[in-house]
Amino acid sequence: MSVSSRLGLAARLRAPAVLRHRHAAGALRFQSGSAPPPAATKANVATATSTITPPPPSGANGASQGSSNGDSGRHSRWRYVKYALYAFVSGGMTYSATKVYMARHPPVQAPPDTTKKTLVILGTGWGAISMLKGIDSSLYNIVVVSPRNYFLFTPLLPSCTVGTIEHRSIMEPIHYITRHKQRAIHFYEAHCTDIDPATKTITVEDQSDIKGDVSKATLKYDYLVVAVGTENNTFGIPGVTEHACFLKEIWDARKIRTKLMDCIETATFPGQTPEEVERLLHMVVVGGGPTGVEYAGELHDFLVEDLVDWYPDIADKVRLTLVEAHPTVLPMFSRQLIDYTESTFKSNKINVQTGSVVKEVHDKHLVVETHDKQRIQIPYGLLVWATGNTQRPLVRDLMAKLSVAQTSKRGLLVDDYLRVKGAEGIWAIGDATFTKYAPLAQVASQQGIYLAKAFNRLAKLEEENAAAGRSTVDIATSTDPTDEDTRAKIRPFNYTSQGSLAYIGADRAIADMPIFGKNVSSSGFATYLFWKSAYINLLFNTRNQSMVAADWVKKTLFGRDISRE
Amino acid sequence: MSVSSRLGLAARLRAPAVLRHRHAAGALRFQSGSAPPPAATKANVATATSTITPPPPSGANGASQGSSNGDSGRHSRWRYVKYALYAFVSGGMTYSATKVYMARHPPVQAPPDTTKKTLVILGTGWGAISMLKGIDSSLYNIVVVSPRNYFLFTPLLPSCTVGTIEHRSIMEPIHYITRHKQRAIHFYEAHCTDIDPATKTITVEDQSDIKGDVSKATLKYDYLVVAVGTENNTFGIPGVTEHACFLKEIWDARKIRTKLMDCIETATFPGQTPEEVERLLHMVVVGGGPTGVEYAGELHDFLVEDLVDWYPDIADKVRLTLVEAHPTVLPMFSRQLIDYTESTFKSNKINVQTGSVVKEVHDKHLVVETHDKQRIQIPYGLLVWATGNTQRPLVRDLMAKLSVAQTSKRGLLVDDYLRVKGAEGIWAIGDATFTKYAPLAQVASQQGIYLAKAFNRLAKLEEENAAAGRSTVDIATSTDPTDEDTRAKIRPFNYTSQGSLAYIGADRAIADMPIFGKNVSSSGFATYLFWKSAYINLLFNTRNQSMVAADWVKKTLFGRDISRE
Repeated sequence: MSVSSRLGLAARLRAPAVLRHRHAAGALRFQSGSAPPPAATKANVATATSTITPPPPSGANGASQGSSNGDSGRHSRWRYVKYALYAFVSGGMTYSATKVYMARHPPVQAPPDTTKKTLVILGTGWGAISMLKGIDSSLYNIVVVSPRNYFLFTPLLPSCTVGTIEHRSIMEPIHYITRHKQRAIHFYEAHCTDIDPATKTITVEDQSDIKGDVSKATLKYDYLVVAVGTENNTFGIPGVTEHACFLKEIWDARKIRTKLMDCIETATFPGQTPEEVERLLHMVVVGGGPTGVEYAGELHDFLVEDLVDWYPDIADKVRLTLVEAHPTVLPMFSRQLIDYTESTFKSNKINVQTGSVVKEVHDKHLVVETHDKQRIQIPYGLLVWATGNTQRPLVRDLMAKLSVAQTSKRGLLVDDYLRVKGAEGIWAIGDATFTKYAPLAQVASQQGIYLAKAFNRLAKLEEENAAAGRSTVDIATSTDPTDEDTRAKIRPFNYTSQGSLAYIGADRAIADMPIFGKNVSSSGFATYLFWKSAYINLLFNTRNQSMVAADWVKKTLFGRDISRE
Repeated sequence: MSVSSRLGLAARLRAPAVLRHRHAAGALRFQSGSAPPPAATKANVATATSTITPPPPSGANGASQGSSNGDSGRHSRWRYVKYALYAFVSGGMTYSATKVYMARHPPVQAPPDTTKKTLVILGTGWGAISMLKGIDSSLYNIVVVSPRNYFLFTPLLPSCTVGTIEHRSIMEPIHYITRHKQRAIHFYEAHCTDIDPATKTITVEDQSDIKGDVSKATLKYDYLVVAVGTENNTFGIPGVTEHACFLKEIWDARKIRTKLMDCIETATFPGQTPEEVERLLHMVVVGGGPTGVEYAGELHDFLVEDLVDWYPDIADKVRLTLVEAHPTVLPMFSRQLIDYTESTFKSNKINVQTGSVVKEVHDKHLVVETHDKQRIQIPYGLLVWATGNTQRPLVRDLMAKLSVAQTSKRGLLVDDYLRVKGAEGIWAIGDATFTKYAPLAQVASQQGIYLAKAFNRLAKLEEENAAAGRSTVDIATSTDPTDEDTRAKIRPFNYTSQGSLAYIGADRAIADMPIFGKNVSSSGFATYLFWKSAYINLLFNTRNQSMVAADWVKKTLFGRDISRE
């Protein structure tokens, strides 16, 4: 501490009216309230610098003393606040850094325990991943089968179609999850092409470009979880698969992005006719659900934020049309939010054509039947098909095999514990099922979490029963998993809605959120910020969170990339 | 400033042997070298706090005084250094922010001046982009034709094959350049399929997926610059195009990345035989030039930094082999660097097979003739073809049309001013030419810069000549562009090598750099850091620099993405 601050500190610490010092040789006489400084000698130099204090102010003393005391008080408090802030920030950074390091360096794993029952999970979507994260890998010999070796954060998929976000930012490799489990989990990148409930086997096939000598195999299971999701529904309309782009997987988003830029560049080809330019720049999306609406919003943003700068000659010729069969877009949202969306689209020059059903799809136009039964042709450059989904052939085959109990064509029927009706040892979650719940990501996610807990508890219970000589309860067949023998207290699955969010373009979003049992609707820019923060939080790990945040920053600073890949 | 620090400051500023103060009422007697403090009254309280100074130390005074003066001097100097640093950093940030903002917001452009001569540039590679950046768009009616609407920073392409860098980080849209020119430049995303020197026209065709009614057109030119580069050379070996992956364009890098993960996942398919696993995990690269070597290095890094963590069961079975026809890899580098590379590869378990020529390529193995004329079969999972290049059909056709002057089959022959021999009004730069220079990016880049300057000067000169009534000199035909009439003082093109760099994996790089006329070779980790900084600097704009830097940080923190897209 410097001389000056020591003095200052001394001044603040000593009683106001006293000036204390030590005298060197030589008497001095003092007036009250003051005292001479000691003679400056070697002996007392060091001491002087530590004991000499300036005479405290009197009279006006009180005021300035008071204020200096008050100043020093605030000064101390602010310093403590600063220290607390530093501690908080550095603690947070240390925590994040540790998390990132541990995620990046998976531990050595014990091999799968083949003495345990074999649990096979089909899929790498919301349901499968949620289950996988929660399941205890020491309780089962777990196998995961999926043709896709990563999880896709689907809510942000529309953002990838125009480059607001890069596609790898919303992909999480399955191995990042399986390698952090206590025991190793086999992952097979393959399609499950058949389920045989009678023999409790599945057939898996490698349908990728690179196959080995062995590309088909049969796997036995004790318990099977079907979480394969659904596929795009073309409603039997010819031309959809050939000419339209779906919006369900990463390759769909990449295809849309490439085709979008292709339309734009082709519109600038020398000698292109005005009618053809108009057609090429007409972007049509079929489907007024959240996916279609969000895609239209993103496309609008790309148009007004990027295209106008880089293609000023044609940007004003780009048109967006959304075709929806229902009378309104977003039928699952509250009325006021539907109106808000439709009016926002109108002011953003997105043409919304509700009550219109697509009848035919050709390479350059589609035929639509309007609500008054008129058929009109709509020329388009890019067509995105974002309608509902339908069951995969695998699930339809399974339903056919279990036709006695499986009476719905819309998906697998399951009981309150998510067990597939009519089969033994098969569960199903997510869009592959037909339940009272909507086919939403959050439903599948909660089902996966539920199933992981259920399997964990029941495996432990089976061990206890076996050790105590009690008859085990087969969770696959027990008609009442909550009976006394199990003592599992497994409750039926219960879904709790977390609300609905959708981005509608121009930095606006809508939200229906359940708050204290009531539905609260909100819309606008603040809801858009909420939408961003909610999705960032929903991302499963720091890596994807950082990548998405970095993409948003990059988009703001540099705009979206307009290269045609 | 607090009381204490004012006192301290006062102590340091006053002459050593004097203690100055003002006396309150009452006489005081002093000993030499000291003086009593004034009586503490209201009147002198404030003054006391500013004038009272502790007695300076004597004797030991000098030393401590000297040191306190020295302390204060250093303290001030450090404060100025800090201020200078703040100013530098904030100035730099302001500059960068301004650059980014201006790059993102292109100005309103005047339309092309159709009274000017039409200059058509074919290509969007190193030569074309360098020329485009330097050319004055007010002097010509400029048209750019290329099937690729972005510039690709090829030196970092091998890094994209394994996800060290994401591919969009090294892509720069052509419109980001053309929209910042003074006058608008037409860009047509199309292939140039024919050049007719006789009529001075070119044929352009839209060969993308989405075509308009008009997909073929004829364009007239006054001056044509051929900068179309080359294509991959299969040396007529059957099977290369069907089974191998090239490494020249972004889609090549993406294909390699996908196939690599496909091989790895297929190797883990249930029941895969050990021989098949060994084949699938054998990665072969043909071509020991910089591209092949860098790819092998990147693949090695991916193996030891990522695969071992996420696929521990098979990572140790992955093998890398580099096949090169020459006796050594990297023949263009100095001997010591070649040896260093080969020994580094050996310690990194990359099998280098030099003096070996590929004879046949099949879907699961290739046939290679070794230096002792033996033929061996090499099974592979992934084959990357990174050999030399060959001329495009467009260039070969042009050479055939100008066969009198165009006597080389290896590329267009040009004069010292880069004019195509035998043609009027056609220039050529880059790999499309055959000159004394190696087919390198830096050669093409310097040629593009040269040509831009030449065209700028000559256009201005033509204007001056026309205004002064002098006969204009047609730069396309003048046999001596440096003659008096032109007064252009155009020097012939002269190439200056900036050296050669290559990354060889495991955070090691090699460099041959010309320093003061001598070649200086370096290798190792420091050279790797230099390699990184050199490439970051070579990137043309802040956007790509930020993206590449962010990719490197992301790779360090989170590793590479192993999803099979």
